[in-house]
Order: sequence, then C-alpha cells, then structure tokens
Amino acid sequence: MASSNAKALAKKEFEDVFAILTEEFLKEVNSRKLPQEAFEWIKKNIHHNVLGGKMNRGMSVVDSIKILKGGEASNDELFKARVLGWCVEWLQAFFLVADDIMDSSITRRGNPCWYKMEGVGTIAINDSFILESSVYFFLKKYFRQEPYYVDLLELFHEVTLDTELGQLIDLITAPEDNVDLNRFSMEKYKYIVLYKTAFYSFYLPVALAMHMAGIKNELAFQKAKDILLPLGEYFQIQDDYLDCFGDPNVIGKIGTDIEDNKCSWCINQALMTASPEQRKLLDKHYGKKNPEDVSIIKQVYKDLNLEELYREYEENSFTILTELISQLDENIIKKDIFLEYMNKIYKRTK
Amino acid sequence: MASSNAKALAKKEFEDVFAILTEEFLKEVNSRKLPQEAFEWIKKNIHHNVLGGKMNRGMSVVDSIKILKGGEASNDELFKARVLGWCVEWLQAFFLVADDIMDSSITRRGNPCWYKMEGVGTIAINDSFILESSVYFFLKKYFRQEPYYVDLLELFHEVTLDTELGQLIDLITAPEDNVDLNRFSMEKYKYIVLYKTAFYSFYLPVALAMHMAGIKNELAFQKAKDILLPLGEYFQIQDDYLDCFGDPNVIGKIGTDIEDNKCSWCINQALMTASPEQRKLLDKHYGKKNPEDVSIIKQVYKDLNLEELYREYEENSFTILTELISQLDENIIKKDIFLEYMNKIYKRTK
Repeated sequence: MASSNAKALAKKEFEDVFAILTEEFLKEVNSRKLPQEAFEWIKKNIHHNVLGGKMNRGMSVVDSIKILKGGEASNDELFKARVLGWCVEWLQAFFLVADDIMDSSITRRGNPCWYKMEGVGTIAINDSFILESSVYFFLKKYFRQEPYYVDLLELFHEVTLDTELGQLIDLITAPEDNVDLNRFSMEKYKYIVLYKTAFYSFYLPVALAMHMAGIKNELAFQKAKDILLPLGEYFQIQDDYLDCFGDPNVIGKIGTDIEDNKCSWCINQALMTASPEQRKLLDKHYGKKNPEDVSIIKQVYKDLNLEELYREYEENSFTILTELISQLDENIIKKDIFLEYMNKIYKRTK
Repeated sequence: MASSNAKALAKKEFEDVFAILTEEFLKEVNSRKLPQEAFEWIKKNIHHNVLGGKMNRGMSVVDSIKILKGGEASNDELFKARVLGWCVEWLQAFFLVADDIMDSSITRRGNPCWYKMEGVGTIAINDSFILESSVYFFLKKYFRQEPYYVDLLELFHEVTLDTELGQLIDLITAPEDNVDLNRFSMEKYKYIVLYKTAFYSFYLPVALAMHMAGIKNELAFQKAKDILLPLGEYFQIQDDYLDCFGDPNVIGKIGTDIEDNKCSWCINQALMTASPEQRKLLDKHYGKKNPEDVSIIKQVYKDLNLEELYREYEENSFTILTELISQLDENIIKKDIFLEYMNKIYKRTK
C-alpha cells in the first residue's frame, strides 16, 4: 500500500485536473456566446456538485492504470486516466443532483443539496443533464483519436442505463411517503445495490482503465465484473450496516436509514428472520422520524443478532472474493487491481 | 408534395417502427431480470411520453433520406432512417418530461404531464433519463457496424448539450414565479430559440440523414445549419405568434404564453417599441392568470401593430431563406431537402 505522503500527492495530482477540465468545459459553452449569468450558473453547478466527495471512484481509474501498466504509465497516460476518473466523478454528480431531488434530501457532503440552494429548485434537473453532457464533451476532447474511444462511449452509456434502472427499482420499492415492508426483499435489495451502485462505482473505473490499457479480451472484462460487482455489493451492505451500527464520530454522519424508510441491508436481513411479533414491531415503527420508533427498530435488530450476522456475511464475502482473485489468470487480468480494492474496503470503519 | 395518401402511408410505416423499438428496449431491460413492476413502469413511461406528438421531427429524417438518395433508398436504409427518426422523438420525450416538471406544466399533448400521473411525481426525472439512455441503446443496436456510428453518437451528444444550454437560459430568464420584463430581450429570446429548439428540431433530423447518406463534407453540414437554424427560429416565432393571435379552433389549444410569463416573440417585440406608458401596462399585467390582465396585454400588442410586424418578419424571413436555398451548390447538398421544409412551415395556421 502506498505511503500516506504518496497518497496525498496522488490526490493532489488528481485534483489539479479538475481545474483544467472545468476551464475546458466553460470555454466550450462560452464559444456559444451564452449570457454571462448562464456562464456563472454553470460554473457554480460544477463546483457545488462535482467537488466535495471522497473521489474514491475517480482515483480508482488512476490506481488501476498504474497497476495495469506495471508502474510504467507515461505522463500522458496518467493525465488521461485522471480525465476518465473525473468523468466518473462528473457522472456521479449527475446522478446525485437528481437523486437528491427524488429523495427529498436536505444535505449532501455537508452542504445543502444543489436543488435546495437559493433560486435553484427544479432547475437542478437541467443542471444534472449538463453535468452528464460534460462527460461526453471530455471524452470527445481527450479520447477522439484513441482506438478505444467508442468503447468508452458505449461503456458510459451502458453503465448509465444500469444505474438508472437501479434507481427506478429503488424509487418504486421504497417511496419515502408510503411505508410498506412487503415491498422489500433481500433479492430486490441486492438488485438495487448491483445496478444503482456497483456498476458505476466499482466496475466502471476499472473497466475504463482496462480500455486505456488496450485490453480487448471480453473474458477479462467478465472476470473484472465477477469480482467488482460482489465487492460493490459488500461495500454497500457495509455502508448500510455502518449507517445503523457505526460510530457517528467515526463515520462522520448520523445515519437516518430507518427514519427514511430506506431499503437497507439491515431491514431486509431483519425481515428474513423476524418472528410474527417482531415483524409487527418493524411494520409499526419503520420509516418514522420519531427517536422512540427508531430505538424500537434498533432493539429488534439487536434481538435478531444483526451484528453477528453482519460479521458472518463479511467473513464469508471476504473469503469468496479472496478465492475468486486467487484463481485469476494473470495473463488475462492482474490480481493486484482487485487486491488494492480489497485492502481499501474490507474492515473499514468509515 | 406527396399526396395525402402517400403521406398517411409514410406515417404508418414510421409508426410501425415504434413498436419494434419499444420491444427491443424492453427485451434489453428484461435481460437484466428486473422486477415485473419496473418492467411495466418503463413500458408506461415510453408509451405515455414518446407517443402522441405530431412526429414531424422523426418523419423529417425519413423525408430527408428519401431526397438524399434520390428516391432510391433501400428498405434497409428506410428502416434505419425511421430508427433515427424515433431516436429524435425519444430524445424529445426526454426533454419534454423534464421540461414539464421544471415549468410546472399540467398537460402535454392533451394528456396529463407524466410527472402529474398518479404515483409518478419526481420519479419522472429518472424516467426522463431512461428515455435518453434508450437513444444510445438503439444507436448501438442498429448502427454499430456503420462507418458513421461515432458521428451519430457525437451529434446526439452535441445537440443534447445545445438544448440543455438553451433550456438553462430559458429557465433563468423567465422563472414562472418572478415576473421581471427587464430580464427579457430579443437577443436572449433568439438565443433560447436557437439552442432550446432549433438544433434538435431542425438541424438534428437532417444532419442524421446526411450522415446516413455518407456525407462527410463539413461545408455541407455548415450549409444545412445556415438554413435550418433560421428556419427553426422562424418556426418558433410563428408558434409564439399563433399562441396569441391564432384561432384556438385551428391550432387546437388555447394559448397561455401571456399568463405563463413566457419569454415569447410577442412580448420581446412589444418591449422593443413600447412607449413608457405602454411599458408600464406590460410590466403591470404580464404573467398574470387573470383574463383582464391578458386582454390589456393583447390590446397593447394590437396598438403596437404586432400583427403587421409579424407579417413583415415572415415575408422577410421567407425571402432570405429562399435566397439562401437558391444559392446552394447541389453538389454539396440538395436544395429539395430545405424546400420540403419551407413548404411545410411557411404560412401554416396551426
């Protein structure tokens, strides 16, 4: 694992590319001579929505290309990987701006959600579109000449559709204003996680680096999926677990999944083993803002041994993924790409 | 001009392709084994939002390819042109579903807006994304093997960004809840029309057909823009004029641009020549739902001779465009494509 100094430098080098891309995109819209206020608006949209995250997804493209190139990536390749990393971050911004409206969220990354900002409101919908369009502007600007340009375009299109389908199922399964635990199931939960999160957060960054590295073998992409998608599932389950059982001082936020009627791993796990009495408590108290309702739910979770079930799931998933990685043929795809991910994700507390 | 029988047949042949595309897209999402209710939801989304329009934009791709191929387009080419035509209609559905939320519209094409349908609400935002994603699914499915595949992708990306920029300027210039005529100007109006409407409605269908016909000459595309974008401007000005001065029995709807504080050609034209007294009346009564306010605005329009100014504009624009078309070099691009458009659009009453 890289030292913390090297990590900070890599992050700084990644961040520097944001300014270049923003300037390029603003130059592009400015070439259309649009009114000054629209120009300023777009600038704010980008800064408010693309920045402020942990940048894990974006940085993964860079980490992956370094591994794929065996430490010999050229400056140009590193720059291009950073551009692709920012494309993932920009794509995510597109999703999050819209998700926040659909979920009636209040804050995001410690700031008010974009649509909640003074004078924005539903204009945020169109702003999210502009963020998505930026991705294709960057791809055209920096990758047009590359033999894998079409692969990048198709990958972004496909993963975008996957994510939208996941979001659709999430929205119709767990509408905020209508609590009905009958709609939940572990099967649906896993489907939502796979499509809404795992494809764009885990598969996309690595697949982008693979295209850059000139990998054409379909099997390599399939193997990457076989590992990264379950890894993404594990990551989300961990996220859901920490929302309820994590230390707010460590995870940096107070979880509200129970209050928000979220289709979380915890509630789906609880539904699988709840007695009729416990089920009644879940039905009655889930999705309510009142702290007393929340503690009743948490008590049921405790009685059902969710913490232990989570540990078991974690061990089990770690074992399976480690086994899958160890079986990889290095001539098809390097194991290190996935080991790097495993190190970042397993046993995290925040 | 085609006889009305031939026209009806062409329309029928175009409509038949909708069913094929819908089925293909539903098959694609179904391959992801998504829950039945999500499948049904997507089906409704497509039927509610893609159908019900006049299909002029989509049919234009087919009309254009027929002309470009000198009446010798093969069945395969005609099918492909219809697919591209539906891509334009699908793209438009993406814009309209979102626009209706942003404009707080109530009805669209004689039905409730999608977001106003029972149980839909802001889920419509994600539904609009899915409509956009369908476009790229169709392009991949039917055009992957074509040498102009990347050109199609880039054209859709570019026109999508143009339209989003137009929509942004429209939204920040004429917010529904905050009437301020100082924000309007004929310059801004023309900008909004150009970007929000003319690119995707007029340039896109013809440019798609040109790519299909193997045209590579940049100058041909520039010439097409030079004619189609002003034609799109004329079309929108006509639309605005008819909203206020057209016969509701003929245009099929009762215009509400004045009530809705729309940045319309009429108000911008009026602002250019209004006396200080007339300006006061406009400021006081524009953007109000009350019929008396509306008739005061209409009286000012009448006093300012808007009808005559419109006739002048129409004559003038017809002359300029006819001249531009007559100067075209047939070796670069066929005049008939544009003459067909002129016939459809000039002097229409609905």
